[in-house]
Amino acid sequence: MTPATDAAAVEAANTAFYEAMETGDFDTVSGLWLDDDATPVTCVHPGWPVLTGRGEVLRSYALIMANTEYIQFFLTDLKISLAADTALVTCTENILSGGPAEDGAELGPLVGQLVVATNVFRRTPDGWRLWSHHASPVLAGDDGPDNAETAPDDLEPPS
Amino acid sequence: MTPATDAAAVEAANTAFYEAMETGDFDTVSGLWLDDDATPVTCVHPGWPVLTGRGEVLRSYALIMANTEYIQFFLTDLKISLAADTALVTCTENILSGGPAEDGAELGPLVGQLVVATNVFRRTPDGWRLWSHHASPVLAGDDGPDNAETAPDDLEPPS
Repeated sequence: MTPATDAAAVEAANTAFYEAMETGDFDTVSGLWLDDDATPVTCVHPGWPVLTGRGEVLRSYALIMANTEYIQFFLTDLKISLAADTALVTCTENILSGGPAEDGAELGPLVGQLVVATNVFRRTPDGWRLWSHHASPVLAGDDGPDNAETAPDDLEPPS
Repeated sequence: MTPATDAAAVEAANTAFYEAMETGDFDTVSGLWLDDDATPVTCVHPGWPVLTGRGEVLRSYALIMANTEYIQFFLTDLKISLAADTALVTCTENILSGGPAEDGAELGPLVGQLVVATNVFRRTPDGWRLWSHHASPVLAGDDGPDNAETAPDDLEPPS
């Protein structure tokens, strides 16, 4: 495939991954993760430690889905870098989500989150599959520009 | 090279990257990042948005180094997954760091941070080079087990 076609296929896989999360389609999420014992998958959810291997990663998605009534991803800043059979995707996940209500209502309060993700895909005979997903919160601090994490746009370093 | 040799070379590159940060060796850090316009590098510092391309990424390191008097990385949980010319490394960065003192003393207060990183390396004729670095804080919440980020070890989902 040409690079342009590859990039389109990678973007489609990336989109499918987030859409499957939105619809709570665990089987599709599971199918989009690489299934190769020689190259174990890794996953970092925002604020979490590293999860390694399909068992640990898919268990985390099952639990997240079971506890998420509503989630929507507005992806921005999507960038794709391709090298042979590996694709590196970065994007901003503007997330709107809600958990189960605790008072009998249908949905708990909606929460907005600003998260950035690095997704690494591998080309397989069945299409591009996720090898790694690392998502982390974009933190806006409140203690001035000396704190690295307060002013990322200015490339302020960590204090 | 055999997979074992490859893994050792990748681990050496990963170690060299953190050691160069510790010694404030900007040239070595710069040299360890992939330099290929066709596959732009990406970098996420803890709490930051995505930085893309050598210019943006290296500028961030120059600023971080200029504002860090002392930094030490104790790497744990190092895992390497290899696929052809790409290597996926995950590790926990137990960081001890200090910025410049503000009162004339040599060093500001030391701060400990628990960070996890996903580092993606590409094989080049000159050795393994960083294609992507994504580091994020491991958050320990304090509002009970309903919050995903409070109990990552139990794989609690995000609320």
